[in-house]
Amino acid sequence: MDNAVEPLAGSHVPASERREFAKEPVSAIRTRIRRGAFADQTGGLAPGMLQGNLAILPASYAQDFSTYCQRNPKPCPLVGVSDRGDPMMRTLGADIDIRTDVPLYNIYRDGELAGQSRDIRDLWQDDFVAFVLGCSYSFDAALQAGGLPLRHLEVGRTPSVFVTNVPTVPAGPFGGGLVVSMRPFSVPNAVRAIEVTARYPNAHGTPVHFGDPAAIGIADMDRPDWGGPIDVLPGEVPVFWACGVTPQVAIRQARPPICITHAPGCMLITDIEA
Amino acid sequence: MDNAVEPLAGSHVPASERREFAKEPVSAIRTRIRRGAFADQTGGLAPGMLQGNLAILPASYAQDFSTYCQRNPKPCPLVGVSDRGDPMMRTLGADIDIRTDVPLYNIYRDGELAGQSRDIRDLWQDDFVAFVLGCSYSFDAALQAGGLPLRHLEVGRTPSVFVTNVPTVPAGPFGGGLVVSMRPFSVPNAVRAIEVTARYPNAHGTPVHFGDPAAIGIADMDRPDWGGPIDVLPGEVPVFWACGVTPQVAIRQARPPICITHAPGCMLITDIEA
Repeated sequence: MDNAVEPLAGSHVPASERREFAKEPVSAIRTRIRRGAFADQTGGLAPGMLQGNLAILPASYAQDFSTYCQRNPKPCPLVGVSDRGDPMMRTLGADIDIRTDVPLYNIYRDGELAGQSRDIRDLWQDDFVAFVLGCSYSFDAALQAGGLPLRHLEVGRTPSVFVTNVPTVPAGPFGGGLVVSMRPFSVPNAVRAIEVTARYPNAHGTPVHFGDPAAIGIADMDRPDWGGPIDVLPGEVPVFWACGVTPQVAIRQARPPICITHAPGCMLITDIEA
Repeated sequence: MDNAVEPLAGSHVPASERREFAKEPVSAIRTRIRRGAFADQTGGLAPGMLQGNLAILPASYAQDFSTYCQRNPKPCPLVGVSDRGDPMMRTLGADIDIRTDVPLYNIYRDGELAGQSRDIRDLWQDDFVAFVLGCSYSFDAALQAGGLPLRHLEVGRTPSVFVTNVPTVPAGPFGGGLVVSMRPFSVPNAVRAIEVTARYPNAHGTPVHFGDPAAIGIADMDRPDWGGPIDVLPGEVPVFWACGVTPQVAIRQARPPICITHAPGCMLITDIEA
């Protein structure tokens, strides 16, 4: 998922040390991650560089998952795909080994979370295909650069994330409800936020909805499915963007024998400028 | 390929009859095509509707081709993918049967053109996956709507199309040179053309080059690889867009046992607004 908070098996890195990290070049940060020395959320690290959600699947599921992403580009913007069995993400950087360069991995078996690890070299299969999908860290940074206040960052949280009743377009065994993240804005700022995020089709692009949460099947804004509640103040409207948790819901529905994703918030940091 | 001219096994439809067609609703045009009654180029038909290039491949080649498209979005903008073995393009229209609804098909065996047909029901395999890619008909219409003169239409031709020395990013067996189409513009119109085509990422988007043809390996503008020569007048610059012939070059390089594409210019007309 993009950046919703769940308990992590990774180490929590103190804010002071994280601030030091954030200044390092991408290659140094990835080396630290590769050594297993950083297993925490990557938000704010390597500003300006594209970060991505990860899904690794056996080849027999890969074409259906590719089709699922093509049919659902807002929640699933494909930014990189590995060659079958090749762990190097050659189109995303000079030296990205997808088996070691994500801080923390979730390992799903038959669609159920079966474990976490900082390194999946022992699990790698010759038929694995790795998919990297754009995440909302990029557009959060762009919204901030555009002068738009982000409440979840102001209160030190991640956005509220909800499963909606809006179906995604299925492909093979993949399908399920669209997952969205919510950010509250004044109406003029909501307009501006739509304008800014339109420039980031690889990071979920424009919102899928604003206003009445019930219109997309959200019963209670105070009880998000992931992350904590975020206040919507008088005069503000909630704005909902497609979220990178969506493919994880689809993968749980597909129940592949094995699937490996990043742990929530612990993204792949690429060499691509966001 | 997008709209370069090659000799067709299809019937050439007189301009007067074509003008009648163009007014029909999409479903009526596709019914006519499905019956085998129209096997000609589709440019100008069903204005405003998305038309697409076609590539049908066996499943064992599908994931590599999906990855090739992801890595080369300008020449290969995926707009629709079928489910394996399902000939209905469910995300592109209410009733599109990809075995009958393209005016004329090219059939490649081991990468070589082996025949043409108006109907491929006898060739359909349970493991086929059909890929539809955006084509430049959409942005030619947008350029015209934006008041930009298109020389190739003024002289009743298709754009000049060239193989460049710019390599595409390979994926599995797919690779080869980028193919481009050329349109000449005055400098202010070239700027405007870039602005307009930026809004059509699913129809090759912004140009890949303007100016010196030699910079992308084009030795002689009077000898295009497909289509006829198009004059570049004094004060004009040639502007080069990625072209939908590119994946056909990649498919020839991959040499799959069978691959079926549209015949040049004879596109799938979808129910999607361009």
